[in-house]
Amino acid sequence: MTKNAGDGGRYVNSAHPKNIKSERKDRSAVFFGRRNFGFMARRKKLSKVKVMMLGGLNEIGKNLAVIEYENDIIMVDCGLGFPDEDMLGVDLVIPDTTYLEKNSDKIRGLFLTHGHEDHIGAIPYVLRKLDIPIYGTRLTLGIIENKLMEHQLSFNPRLNCVEAGQTVTAGCMSVEFIRVNHSIADACCLAIKTPVGTIIHTGDFKLDLTPIEGEMMNLTRLGQLGNEGVLLLMCESTNAERPGYTPSEKKVGQSLDNIFLRNTDKRIVIATFSSNVHRVQQIINTSAQYGRRVAITGRSMLNIVGAATRLGYMSAPDGVLIDINDIKKYPPEQITLITTGSQGEPMSALYRMAFCSHDKVQLGSNDLVVISASAIPGNEKMVDKIINELLKNGADVFKDDLVEVHVSGHACQEELKLMMALTKPKYFMPIHGEFKHLVQNKKNAIYMGIPETNIFISDLGKVLEIGTDGARFNGTVPAGIVLVDGYGVGDIGNIVLRDRRHLSQDGLLVVVASIDFSYGTLVSGPDIVSRGFVYVRESEALMEKAREIAKDAINDCFDSNVFERTEIKAAVKNSLSKFIFSRTGRKPMILPIVMDV
Amino acid sequence: MTKNAGDGGRYVNSAHPKNIKSERKDRSAVFFGRRNFGFMARRKKLSKVKVMMLGGLNEIGKNLAVIEYENDIIMVDCGLGFPDEDMLGVDLVIPDTTYLEKNSDKIRGLFLTHGHEDHIGAIPYVLRKLDIPIYGTRLTLGIIENKLMEHQLSFNPRLNCVEAGQTVTAGCMSVEFIRVNHSIADACCLAIKTPVGTIIHTGDFKLDLTPIEGEMMNLTRLGQLGNEGVLLLMCESTNAERPGYTPSEKKVGQSLDNIFLRNTDKRIVIATFSSNVHRVQQIINTSAQYGRRVAITGRSMLNIVGAATRLGYMSAPDGVLIDINDIKKYPPEQITLITTGSQGEPMSALYRMAFCSHDKVQLGSNDLVVISASAIPGNEKMVDKIINELLKNGADVFKDDLVEVHVSGHACQEELKLMMALTKPKYFMPIHGEFKHLVQNKKNAIYMGIPETNIFISDLGKVLEIGTDGARFNGTVPAGIVLVDGYGVGDIGNIVLRDRRHLSQDGLLVVVASIDFSYGTLVSGPDIVSRGFVYVRESEALMEKAREIAKDAINDCFDSNVFERTEIKAAVKNSLSKFIFSRTGRKPMILPIVMDV
Repeated sequence: MTKNAGDGGRYVNSAHPKNIKSERKDRSAVFFGRRNFGFMARRKKLSKVKVMMLGGLNEIGKNLAVIEYENDIIMVDCGLGFPDEDMLGVDLVIPDTTYLEKNSDKIRGLFLTHGHEDHIGAIPYVLRKLDIPIYGTRLTLGIIENKLMEHQLSFNPRLNCVEAGQTVTAGCMSVEFIRVNHSIADACCLAIKTPVGTIIHTGDFKLDLTPIEGEMMNLTRLGQLGNEGVLLLMCESTNAERPGYTPSEKKVGQSLDNIFLRNTDKRIVIATFSSNVHRVQQIINTSAQYGRRVAITGRSMLNIVGAATRLGYMSAPDGVLIDINDIKKYPPEQITLITTGSQGEPMSALYRMAFCSHDKVQLGSNDLVVISASAIPGNEKMVDKIINELLKNGADVFKDDLVEVHVSGHACQEELKLMMALTKPKYFMPIHGEFKHLVQNKKNAIYMGIPETNIFISDLGKVLEIGTDGARFNGTVPAGIVLVDGYGVGDIGNIVLRDRRHLSQDGLLVVVASIDFSYGTLVSGPDIVSRGFVYVRESEALMEKAREIAKDAINDCFDSNVFERTEIKAAVKNSLSKFIFSRTGRKPMILPIVMDV
Repeated sequence: MTKNAGDGGRYVNSAHPKNIKSERKDRSAVFFGRRNFGFMARRKKLSKVKVMMLGGLNEIGKNLAVIEYENDIIMVDCGLGFPDEDMLGVDLVIPDTTYLEKNSDKIRGLFLTHGHEDHIGAIPYVLRKLDIPIYGTRLTLGIIENKLMEHQLSFNPRLNCVEAGQTVTAGCMSVEFIRVNHSIADACCLAIKTPVGTIIHTGDFKLDLTPIEGEMMNLTRLGQLGNEGVLLLMCESTNAERPGYTPSEKKVGQSLDNIFLRNTDKRIVIATFSSNVHRVQQIINTSAQYGRRVAITGRSMLNIVGAATRLGYMSAPDGVLIDINDIKKYPPEQITLITTGSQGEPMSALYRMAFCSHDKVQLGSNDLVVISASAIPGNEKMVDKIINELLKNGADVFKDDLVEVHVSGHACQEELKLMMALTKPKYFMPIHGEFKHLVQNKKNAIYMGIPETNIFISDLGKVLEIGTDGARFNGTVPAGIVLVDGYGVGDIGNIVLRDRRHLSQDGLLVVVASIDFSYGTLVSGPDIVSRGFVYVRESEALMEKAREIAKDAINDCFDSNVFERTEIKAAVKNSLSKFIFSRTGRKPMILPIVMDV
């Protein structure tokens, strides 16, 4: 483990270990693509390769694929998901890694396609249970380092830096990193050679003929692999429903140029995804071109711009980047602000600007705010909330639907078809998407001539076995969600969530009574305390009546010679909930507590 | 109050009272549009007309406009809104009508533009406080009748049926109903003659050159009014951001025809808004044409189809409509089902079909489900949840973004401009929309040549006064939201909602202790009960430690001679919340209860 200044990394191993090779390995060994699969019968009997998804199916996010052959396991990505609306109070969702923990000795490495949260966000949690080597490109590891430092792990994680074009040996398998384009720099897809054949995992990708930095997706290499024979294509499905091609990131640059040209009298504030290094670079470039200084605000934006600049993925002409504290030294029309908050996140920098609680920036009629992002499903209303507030402050707002200030990072249908056409896989598994996306990607594959019987829509934990005699689902491994709430990982589940939902809808009534069980008398109470149920000062009569009902219920128990604590509690709960519902139409949680004195 | 079989109404007054005139009244009296406003100086001194919005500004829904001149008040619409995400447990939101209650003797009537919930939904609640005459078209009143019967009012509401073209006298003002097109039949805009000039309230509208039933929007009459002079145009803004024209409802019929033609081997299930009578009619027509029977499912769909058929707004050829219980008598490919649930509403008929809990319909690979609606902002994820589930069941799903099975009911920019061009208003007030919609509609008006100083973006409760000497904001009246939760109207507010949010995030800990205050000793407890906080069985050590912390806090109080109940509770809360946060990173509500025994 050596620190290397060039990588800027604390943990990153940039002196390549023996298992990382830049030379391409001998690829004559085993190919089992569509055409030469028939040779298998004559070789020694091979085991089956198992392909499992522990995240990233029937959902957007939480991506984690597992490929297993005999005693070797490869993990691809390890992302987090965001909680559904009914998972009240939950901060994050991570994959259930029980299967991996049980087979930890088999794991040869975690291979990362790129540095988005839904591909790397669960790493700090999973590393607590699995001390495994991690392989990724330079920017990806740079982002993970930031993340790991925040989590203060007790040990040094084994981060190994790989470049596109390099291959890592992982037990009896090998993993080749192949350049793709995406909405974050340094993204790769993976070609995983197994004894049974080559598996291509696309990661997230798009084809960008004019990328801002770095190279176009390596179509040539994918085509070579296709010619050699690909056993299985695991293909992302996020934009499978969208026809055509995703536009180049350059298109956004053109829109920005147009905006800057026509708004020379205004301060320009641009909100975008912090991880979209190329977008931020374009904003810096256009600002410099129009003589503006650029200040950055928002914690994650500062973090990623810092990492990307340090690692050489981003650069600004001298003097263009200024500290947010210095913006008042320049006239507003010479300033560009780049900020977080493009998804309407409460307490993001843009949110604070809109609601006038940002300590450095006040927005007004001299400001043009550009939302350079599209709302992730579920965030629409939060984004609109910010936009309305910005407009109330007098600022102008440009968003993605009218001026083209955002492009997707995911392949549309034609790009997905291109991936299939180049790799010519024998088997196809759509991944990374809700069911509707997987189904549509299956349709795309059928359209491209892949036989329907060779297409597998899987489910979390479902095991696809591929051998020389074909492919089929066979069994399942544990899979699902682990909820992260505060410091707790997996310590809340359905019961806790059910209670939170109940409490959130109608609040609660706590009924406390002190009972002397030896004499069967009420010593004190019952008292009723409510929260989130009704405004008590205006409902005194209701609460007094409720107290009487509870008292009667207890005394009825005594009269019937019932002195069992649980029975008394049930009686109180029962009579009180009937009364409350009949009066209010509400069903608050009723919590009877009986003290024995 | 007479029941009239033709209207089918229980409450509807169809024998026109004296104040409803079909002949147009003498319009020579007073016009104060842009051109002849100058005459005013020579007339007797007039008061000012006051225009207030009590709902429908900075929001979609809850529409209620108030127009007041001296001793006369006119209300336009009385709708409900849906709660924001942070209004946990709230069922509905209705306008604050304090101002109207205080001036109830002035109210000459509630005039309804159409029968959508966001225009009529608050009527059952407001009628409890305001016994006022209601004027609306036949279908609108038919829908209200259904609604009022469900609410079981203790008195007969005064519903007065008006046809497009008729004028109602309302004190010193009059209200003319003018046909517009919209996504519900029998919609009107209103021309309100006041002594100061004519106010046009557009309601919700679009221009449909080929409406399914009834007439095209009455452009001629609007143009006449414009020529005579319009003082103020209150113009809806829902689609103000969308360029172009909204397509005709007929376009959906063409898409349906195409779908029916190509899917003769499948049962077709179509989900749409129950109030979209014309959409339902088109589905019935297309089904009949392709030899299918039509069954209806979903309570609101049955209600509205019933009302619309009874009132003659909808019709089906003999034998086409069948009962849902009879669908098994026909082959699936001869059946069309029309259902609620197009917004993904939990427990709607479509939701139950998707999740296999509909008692009459099981969906599978022989079904094609068409979502003939677009998701209202905020509902996207719920709709997707249903779509994914339908696909998992093997059904095919068509939705609005790929096949054109939905058109909006609201005017896009060119139609809004047309409204302005015809009515040529002196003053302009954008209504019905979030702030961003209002701002964009203001821009549309400026584009049409209305001077910026004559355009008023108002706010709830803000009073726009218009007199012969001009228009300006002057003062406010009470306005805001009243929350409906169960049977309770307005009995929960910020404190209750704050508690529900708190409870929803991290649950609660109840700490109960029985104390003998005369001796200053703990008699029993403290006991801790938690809900929604942590899975207790796996956190026994944590809970035991929490109990100790609470006990120490109480004993520390005694040791320091603190016997004040509130102080003891504060001490428990304080030490416990610190401990819990340090261990879990969570902040559950902590509810100390001290019993005096």
